[in-house]
This record gives sequence, C-alpha cells and structure tokens, in this order.
Amino acid sequence: MPHFHIEYSANLEEVVDVGALCEAIRAEAVQIDAFPLAGVRVRATRVDHYAIADGNAKHGFIDLSIRLREGRSQDVKSDSITRIFATLKSFMSEALGTHSIALSAEIRDIDASLSPKFGTIRDHLETPS
Amino acid sequence: MPHFHIEYSANLEEVVDVGALCEAIRAEAVQIDAFPLAGVRVRATRVDHYAIADGNAKHGFIDLSIRLREGRSQDVKSDSITRIFATLKSFMSEALGTHSIALSAEIRDIDASLSPKFGTIRDHLETPS
Amino acid sequence: MPHFHIEYSANLEEVVDVGALCEAIRAEAVQIDAFPLAGVRVRATRVDHYAIADGNAKHGFIDLSIRLREGRSQDVKSDSITRIFATLKSFMSEALGTHSIALSAEIRDIDASLSPKFGTIRDHLETPS
Repeated sequence: MPHFHIEYSANLEEVVDVGALCEAIRAEAVQIDAFPLAGVRVRATRVDHYAIADGNAKHGFIDLSIRLREGRSQDVKSDSITRIFATLKSFMSEALGTHSIALSAEIRDIDASLSPKFGTIRDHLETPS
Repeated sequence: MPHFHIEYSANLEEVVDVGALCEAIRAEAVQIDAFPLAGVRVRATRVDHYAIADGNAKHGFIDLSIRLREGRSQDVKSDSITRIFATLKSFMSEALGTHSIALSAEIRDIDASLSPKFGTIRDHLETPS
Repeated sequence: MPHFHIEYSANLEEVVDVGALCEAIRAEAVQIDAFPLAGVRVRATRVDHYAIADGNAKHGFIDLSIRLREGRSQDVKSDSITRIFATLKSFMSEALGTHSIALSAEIRDIDASLSPKFGTIRDHLETPS
C-alpha cells in the first residue's frame, strides 16, 4: 500500500501523456508521509468504451482512486488527497482549457487485517527506505 | 460522481456491443435523480485473462460497480441499482438465452470529504444542467 | 459473488503466465467454503502505464482485490485471504527470487442489499452446484 488507480477515457490518449501523469503522481506521493515510498504503486488503465454526461463523444475523464491501509487520521487523508489532486489538476491545466474533461479522486481505507502483502521491491531500491 | 465501472470477459466481445451497453446505462442513469447528469461516467474494461466457476472457458461475466457520493438514502440507492440492473439485464436478455453469463452489480459510497473533483464538462453540455 | 480482481504491471507479462495465475486462484477459491463455486470470477487486467516506489522501471506488482457478499465472519475472511494469498505467493515464488515485485491483496464486503445478480452459469455447469 498505497495503491493509486487511474482510469481515463481513450479520447484523452492524444491529449495527455499518461505515463508522465503516473510519474508526476508518484513523485508527489513519495513526498507525503502517509505514503511509504516502497509501497507506492501508481497505475493507469485506458477505457475504450465509455458514455459520459449527455453522451457527447467529446467528453473525457480521468478518475483516480487511492486505496490506503487504514490507520491514518481524516486530516492526514484529507491533506494527502488535496496534494495529490492538485498535482493531477496542475498536470491537466492546459488540456482543461481546451477540452471537456472531468477530473475526480477519492481515498478509501483498506482493512489492515485482511490485506496481506509480500515483495522484493525494498531489496531493489537504490536507497533503501 | 457517479462512476459506473463495467468489467466483462473477453469472450463476450462478439456477443455484446459493449459501447451500446455503456450508452444504454448512461441513458437510464441520467433519468435517475440520484445521478446528476454532468457527473455520469460509464465505462467498460475488457478482461483478457479470467477463470470462472468450474473453469469452463464458455462462461462469461459482466460486472458493474457504481461509486456514488455519500448522502443518498438506502431506499434511493436500492431503487437506483434496481433500475440500472434492469437495464443491464434487458440489454443482455438475448445473450442470456444462449450463453453462460453471470451478471452482477453493486453500489458503494464515496467519502464526500475525501473526493475532490474538478472539470469542464458543464461548459461543454449542449443544454447546461 | 465473489469477485477476484488482479491488476499487474505490463513488465510482468513475460515473467508470469497470467492466465495460469487466474486458474490457480480459481482452483484454490472453489475449495474454500466462503466462495460458492458458481459465483467465482477471477480476472486480471494488465496496466500499461505505471510508476512504482522510487520510479525505477524494473519494479513490478500484482495486486489482488476480492469483493465478497457481506455476512462472512472476520475469521472466515481472514482464513480465506490467507489461503488465496498463499496461492499467489507460491505461484510467484520463482519470479520473486529474480525480480523486484510487490504482491498485495485485500478483501472487502459488498453491501448485500445493493448488489443484484442474475445469470445462467449454473445451467451450464457440468456438475450443478
């Protein structure tokens, strides 16, 4: 943990560099105490089929869901989502000026007693954290 | 908000017009008070790897998850999911007669205090809502 | 229900047989009382855009989310996720020895009153369950 899931409509593929967006969110997330570096996993899935608002094909969206191991206070989560969302909004500012795009985000808790994890990423970090 | 996420097994690609299914769900959703038009985002993701029930490759599924900003009563949510699921079932009725398919749906709340949003879709609606 | 959602980074495509992983998890799941056979749906989505930990492209992940109709005790859920995660870990043991990979899993409840379902899979099982 934490997990960052982005879904975006396929019509934004040429408007947004989604790989760079993942990297921008990662870079911001690892500077936030609530998100331990070795656990940060940002990913984005393109959706090819979608229907938005009044159904006009020009609309697009980027939706970010964050799953975080329970235990952080509401304030910490609120500050964290505010910073991450600001990163998303800033990354999208040019596109928002010219396109019909909806941005959204949420954080939800993961039940700590029902979320096993295991991995080797810590062994492969340049600077162990 | 609200978000409608469909996942479907790849073996239904030739059985179902998934773009038309997204549109059918959108068209029904925007007529339901609980779902503000400008916020409706229906999307579908095909899953290429799957294993269902007894593992027979003929089985398929369509699974719909709805995420809705908290605040609607249980009754409103129950009525809403009933209508949306009826749309899904009706859209699939012919395929259900000839194929092994599981349909499912759920609604869950989004924590309103942890779900920022921003966008330009309202500026691009033909009839502002 | 239950639903098993796997997301995996694209750089594991050549390291892991994801179809076989879905089948391994399905085969284990149907032996667990909490997971009724006809309802088991395991699927995996490859994510092409991702950014992990310190951003090094060599890192990868497999993340498994299970959605289960509410009503099982915490103990039952804990035992279930432990068995499923052990299957995942065992399936990945060779890859974990040579690659930087994070494995994770979680279970969360589905609100039974807001999750309609319908289907024909039971009619197509070789041995009806």
